[in-house]
Amino acid sequence: MARAKRSSSGAPTTEPVARNGLLDRRLFLSSSLAALGAGGLALGSPGAARAAGPPETPSWMQYPGGPFSAYGGPSKHESKVTRVLIRSQPGTTGSGASRTPLEALEGTITPSGLHFERHHSGVPDIDPEQHRLLIHGMVKRPLIFTMDALMRYPMLSRIHFMECSGNSQLMYGPTPPALRAGEIHGLVSCSEWTGVPLRMLLEEAGADRAASWLLAEGADSASMSRSVPMAKAMDDALIAFYQNGERLRPENGYPVRLFLPGYEGNMSVKWLRRIKVTSTPTMTKDETSRYTDLQADGKSLMFTYPMDVKSVVTRPSPGVTLQGPGLYEVSGIAWSGSGTITRVEISADGGQTWAEAALTAPVLPRALTRFRIPWKWNGAPAVMKSRATDSTGEVQPTRDKLVAEHGTNVIFHYNAIQAWSIAANGEVKNVYA
Amino acid sequence: MARAKRSSSGAPTTEPVARNGLLDRRLFLSSSLAALGAGGLALGSPGAARAAGPPETPSWMQYPGGPFSAYGGPSKHESKVTRVLIRSQPGTTGSGASRTPLEALEGTITPSGLHFERHHSGVPDIDPEQHRLLIHGMVKRPLIFTMDALMRYPMLSRIHFMECSGNSQLMYGPTPPALRAGEIHGLVSCSEWTGVPLRMLLEEAGADRAASWLLAEGADSASMSRSVPMAKAMDDALIAFYQNGERLRPENGYPVRLFLPGYEGNMSVKWLRRIKVTSTPTMTKDETSRYTDLQADGKSLMFTYPMDVKSVVTRPSPGVTLQGPGLYEVSGIAWSGSGTITRVEISADGGQTWAEAALTAPVLPRALTRFRIPWKWNGAPAVMKSRATDSTGEVQPTRDKLVAEHGTNVIFHYNAIQAWSIAANGEVKNVYA
Repeated sequence: MARAKRSSSGAPTTEPVARNGLLDRRLFLSSSLAALGAGGLALGSPGAARAAGPPETPSWMQYPGGPFSAYGGPSKHESKVTRVLIRSQPGTTGSGASRTPLEALEGTITPSGLHFERHHSGVPDIDPEQHRLLIHGMVKRPLIFTMDALMRYPMLSRIHFMECSGNSQLMYGPTPPALRAGEIHGLVSCSEWTGVPLRMLLEEAGADRAASWLLAEGADSASMSRSVPMAKAMDDALIAFYQNGERLRPENGYPVRLFLPGYEGNMSVKWLRRIKVTSTPTMTKDETSRYTDLQADGKSLMFTYPMDVKSVVTRPSPGVTLQGPGLYEVSGIAWSGSGTITRVEISADGGQTWAEAALTAPVLPRALTRFRIPWKWNGAPAVMKSRATDSTGEVQPTRDKLVAEHGTNVIFHYNAIQAWSIAANGEVKNVYA
Repeated sequence: MARAKRSSSGAPTTEPVARNGLLDRRLFLSSSLAALGAGGLALGSPGAARAAGPPETPSWMQYPGGPFSAYGGPSKHESKVTRVLIRSQPGTTGSGASRTPLEALEGTITPSGLHFERHHSGVPDIDPEQHRLLIHGMVKRPLIFTMDALMRYPMLSRIHFMECSGNSQLMYGPTPPALRAGEIHGLVSCSEWTGVPLRMLLEEAGADRAASWLLAEGADSASMSRSVPMAKAMDDALIAFYQNGERLRPENGYPVRLFLPGYEGNMSVKWLRRIKVTSTPTMTKDETSRYTDLQADGKSLMFTYPMDVKSVVTRPSPGVTLQGPGLYEVSGIAWSGSGTITRVEISADGGQTWAEAALTAPVLPRALTRFRIPWKWNGAPAVMKSRATDSTGEVQPTRDKLVAEHGTNVIFHYNAIQAWSIAANGEVKNVYA
């Protein structure tokens, strides 16, 4: 398999940098579209047309518009852009997961209203005045906090993705699911999180230096509970109160949650009520009967915390159909729980040749990273792939390699390269290729 | 006036770095609170208490929680956190401004539902299928675009603040308004904006190189119109479709708006329908009868585009009352339309001595920057100020200096240092000091 063609240090040209029409990632930044002959490439068609004068005055300019709103929402014309509930567990209304519609979004921040949901027994209706956080176990001074008291502590803000370890699990199946990008991979979202470093609270409680684990327990009726390594708790763990500037939404842990950057989402226990400092993992139901990775030989991997390097092209993708041959921008997201995205390569010929995409600054650790590359589609069937590399040197594997290593019993930590096939009529499908 | 004490290169100590209890900005990052004697400083009190065992099982853990939602909203317990409409123009429902509740938010991203609003004739109800953008005037090829056609073009994403030039205008008045931080300064918000560089469209239309201006016109019933320098249009102007990942909200310009990073908000024309390339400014009603800065001598400044360097402490602030003497974190936001925030200094003694606050990474150009500093309040009355400096070397002026320079006829571009007085009972008030 050919490696990505690295751009030369000279000015970009319109020569393809990989087969099947991938162009230099710097092209749109440095050249005028007119110089690219964009009109001839049908960019902007069929909607762009020459015009001689201003358009007619539309009806909405003829009367005063609507009033102010105390809290705004999306346009009624975007009412189809919602979270997608794939399945709820039998006999429940609040157990299961809903997904972020990745193919309808751009940039890197996920609006909180579209952040994915994963609940084990629904969304508890918590009164923040009554809610308490207890820190106990191997500590000198057990402490119990009101929310007001917790919010007196120093805070940090950081932009990080969160991904459910079960994201993309349908891709382990024998046939590629005929679904959209968000329906397949939408258990990942990205927000600015603000909260108190957990380290401070553990130090104030006087956590025993011999204790190498803690238990985090949620106040939902499932008592969602996970064991967290003390090293992570003392490193970058947050007790989070704010998401994208405002207090957490109920479905994301209001009034307080744990946030463990880069770790599988269920570890960032929502509706946090208790932290117990321990010498060993607690072996909760949520880490023995669930959230272990069943391998082909019948053994399970436990405590597989960081989410692996991964990417997906969102434009084009299933439902985001191409409108005829011409110049396009390919756009997508990449992320890694182990560090920063350093490279995303794109192939338009099924993985035979690769070209490097541009990464939109700022590229932040453990955050969604937007990548983009120009593509001159000739109208023939094509297979598009993206392959991300992170700052630890890890490269996103092929599906064949991932399945060879872990089998298909497992439903967690799927991070293989995604292939989209593009038909001559511009329709996009999920394929194993 | 004493300059900020710069931290030494050694480890931070608990010695004050400016008078009246301001501590080293690095203190919370490097020291344990226990080592600071935080308990003795009453941090965490009165809500923190010793505890012997887990709290009782609350009612919300005894039954399954609520269902998934297609599009989430804030907790009902946060229903008071809304935009604040200070005034609507007489006889209208949609003309005026609503403000972001800065004192209730943290971090740097403003949730789109709380982004400030400034409308000149309400929010038009635009059908995106019918909406068009026309580019004409001094161009070789006049072009008219559907939204689908425009969104084929290459995009960029950037995090930027937007501030109304009329923000903080009540502070020009003879007495300090008894209002909250957001009510005074909340015509500023910050989002991730994604769209097409305007440069590309101008090049495709073949804009005349002799043309040094353009006219941008909105599709509201006020036909909000401003003249934009061609240099800005060719630099970093965006034709924006997405805000915080999703399509623009109606009140922020759905389906498409102009976005001019760092410029006064009204220049980023919402509901954009027309760009006309011109040789001179068009002198629209919105830049002659409005959005000019009337000076003390009766003359007006025109085309005062970049918003000046500015900051405000949001915690403590009016309504965000201190709960007795002890250790606190002071938190606030700073921004500049001319570049990046390089320093924010805090004074707890009315401006006699200053200490440097920590800036939360990433510090981005023309974006809200969160600053924080530890403060040991001794319970005596205090006056707190923040003073920001940007990458061009500009420093936020005192109110006296701003008024001496521009008078009090002007209602735009107020960027003076904000003073909050803190009473012995912890109440915070807006003062001229």
